[in-house]
Amino acid sequence: MTKLRRMVLDVLKTHEPKLTDLALKLCSLDGIDGVNITVYEIDKSTENIKITIEGYNLDYEAIKSIIESMNGVIHSIDEVAAGKKIVDEVKTPQDRY
Amino acid sequence: MTKLRRMVLDVLKTHEPKLTDLALKLCSLDGIDGVNITVYEIDKSTENIKITIEGYNLDYEAIKSIIESMNGVIHSIDEVAAGKKIVDEVKTPQDRY
Amino acid sequence: MTKLRRMVLDVLKTHEPKLTDLALKLCSLDGIDGVNITVYEIDKSTENIKITIEGYNLDYEAIKSIIESMNGVIHSIDEVAAGKKIVDEVKTPQDRY
Amino acid sequence: MTKLRRMVLDVLKTHEPKLTDLALKLCSLDGIDGVNITVYEIDKSTENIKITIEGYNLDYEAIKSIIESMNGVIHSIDEVAAGKKIVDEVKTPQDRY
Amino acid sequence: MTKLRRMVLDVLKTHEPKLTDLALKLCSLDGIDGVNITVYEIDKSTENIKITIEGYNLDYEAIKSIIESMNGVIHSIDEVAAGKKIVDEVKTPQDRY
Amino acid sequence: MTKLRRMVLDVLKTHEPKLTDLALKLCSLDGIDGVNITVYEIDKSTENIKITIEGYNLDYEAIKSIIESMNGVIHSIDEVAAGKKIVDEVKTPQDRY
Amino acid sequence: MTKLRRMVLDVLKTHEPKLTDLALKLCSLDGIDGVNITVYEIDKSTENIKITIEGYNLDYEAIKSIIESMNGVIHSIDEVAAGKKIVDEVKTPQDRY
Repeated sequence: MTKLRRMVLDVLKTHEPKLTDLALKLCSLDGIDGVNITVYEIDKSTENIKITIEGYNLDYEAIKSIIESMNGVIHSIDEVAAGKKIVDEVKTPQDRY
Repeated sequence: MTKLRRMVLDVLKTHEPKLTDLALKLCSLDGIDGVNITVYEIDKSTENIKITIEGYNLDYEAIKSIIESMNGVIHSIDEVAAGKKIVDEVKTPQDRY
Repeated sequence: MTKLRRMVLDVLKTHEPKLTDLALKLCSLDGIDGVNITVYEIDKSTENIKITIEGYNLDYEAIKSIIESMNGVIHSIDEVAAGKKIVDEVKTPQDRY
Repeated sequence: MTKLRRMVLDVLKTHEPKLTDLALKLCSLDGIDGVNITVYEIDKSTENIKITIEGYNLDYEAIKSIIESMNGVIHSIDEVAAGKKIVDEVKTPQDRY
Repeated sequence: MTKLRRMVLDVLKTHEPKLTDLALKLCSLDGIDGVNITVYEIDKSTENIKITIEGYNLDYEAIKSIIESMNGVIHSIDEVAAGKKIVDEVKTPQDRY
Repeated sequence: MTKLRRMVLDVLKTHEPKLTDLALKLCSLDGIDGVNITVYEIDKSTENIKITIEGYNLDYEAIKSIIESMNGVIHSIDEVAAGKKIVDEVKTPQDRY
Repeated sequence: MTKLRRMVLDVLKTHEPKLTDLALKLCSLDGIDGVNITVYEIDKSTENIKITIEGYNLDYEAIKSIIESMNGVIHSIDEVAAGKKIVDEVKTPQDRY
């Protein structure tokens, strides 16, 4: 199965619409099992969030459209996983030190 | 299932009513499986708490009403999760360093 | 089920009666599955302990009565959990840094 | 079940009798499932050990008698658990910082 | 089974094509169960990524071809696992200090 | 069952005979399920190792004989466990700080 | 079963032959379930690697022959496990501080 299974996005958004609305909207897309939004920094008018999405067939363009339609900008894709199973990053000595 | 499954709230409240009463009141809402309240700081007249709520269909406005009716103010939503399964935040190298 | 499931208490007590007696006494209450008492500091005449109680229906007033009847004072409630399942606190970036 | 299930003891003993003999002797008591003895410090004539005992009905006085009969002194009880299930201490923000 | 089961690669690539495309392309190879790509550093024109690939028969030359065809260069192989089961590295005291 | 189940030994030995031979020899004793030998320090003529032995009936004197017959000296017993189940040491606040 | 089950080796090798070839060659030996090779340091002409081998009957001399035939030198054996089950090293207070 050559499908996207996990995506971790670094996003900047305005305070409105609320995180709960953004999470629900993303979950309404096909191929998504769950969405986690974690807040990293809150400024006067914006907040820096990390969005973790898992599913069986993620569509990056559709995800991006929803985020932008809700006043968000994707700063970077921090992690992606694809395939029959979700593989986690393996720590190696280079990361540890 | 495009429902809210987890919410983590940073809340400031007066000492009364007690944490036990606030936890029980929140649990009485439909769609909630469990509530955890952890104390972060205690001042003379207020306490800073973190509320973690998990369930199959969380209603933010109803949760907010109960917290406010018990002398609490939501400072920020720190994390939300939605969907068929509860997805945890995935740590990436950006967070680790 | 809108019942209290876990309670973590910060307690100061005199050395007597012993921790083993306090733990057994708390366990004799209805609705309690288990009690853990961990010692944090021992002074000449007092000790600072943390009591973690889990069960299916905790009664704060009954617990408080027993602690006070055994020369203990509850300094603070540090955590409570209520509901159908025991939810643990979720760590967020705000806690980590 | 209002019985003692776990006990963690801080003990000072002479080098003789050996740790293996002390562990076996404690296990011979009724109501004990297992004993762990971990060494913290070794001095010329004494050693500081931590004894962790788990079971379904621990008898503090009997445990104390055995330890004393083998040249040990209990400095403090560091943790006790009682009840139908063994509850572990829950870490709270107060402990972490 | 003397097959490659896991490979961790340190790779430098240009921003285009996107990580999602690289992950999907690698998953289309035979013998691969899943691919994880984690971003370590982002510069103006390049990004440093770690690719973790797991499967039942990895083909290093085929993997290398795909990475190079998508503007990537393998800096180093950081870990490989082969055999009937995927063995993780065991930490020893030499690593810990 | 009042038997020894785990023993952790701090041992100094000469480089010969090899660790693999010592591990195999210890495993040939009755009542032993497995042996782990981890190297802590290597000097010109000696090495400092930690031996962890688990089983259903460990015999300290027999273990000591084998170690000494292979040019090893037991510096200390660092941990023992006995009983129906292998109990691990429980961390308490005293250890953490 | 008095057989070797795990071996952790600290090895220095030239860059060629590749890690993937070394891993596959080791796996072709009888009695081996899996091999992990992790890179610790890369120099101009050599690399320092850790090889973790697990199986049901490891043959140290055969393993050493393969490593040497592929331009590697075993610096030290860092850990071995033998017996019916693979026992992990148990951390004791001496290691923690």
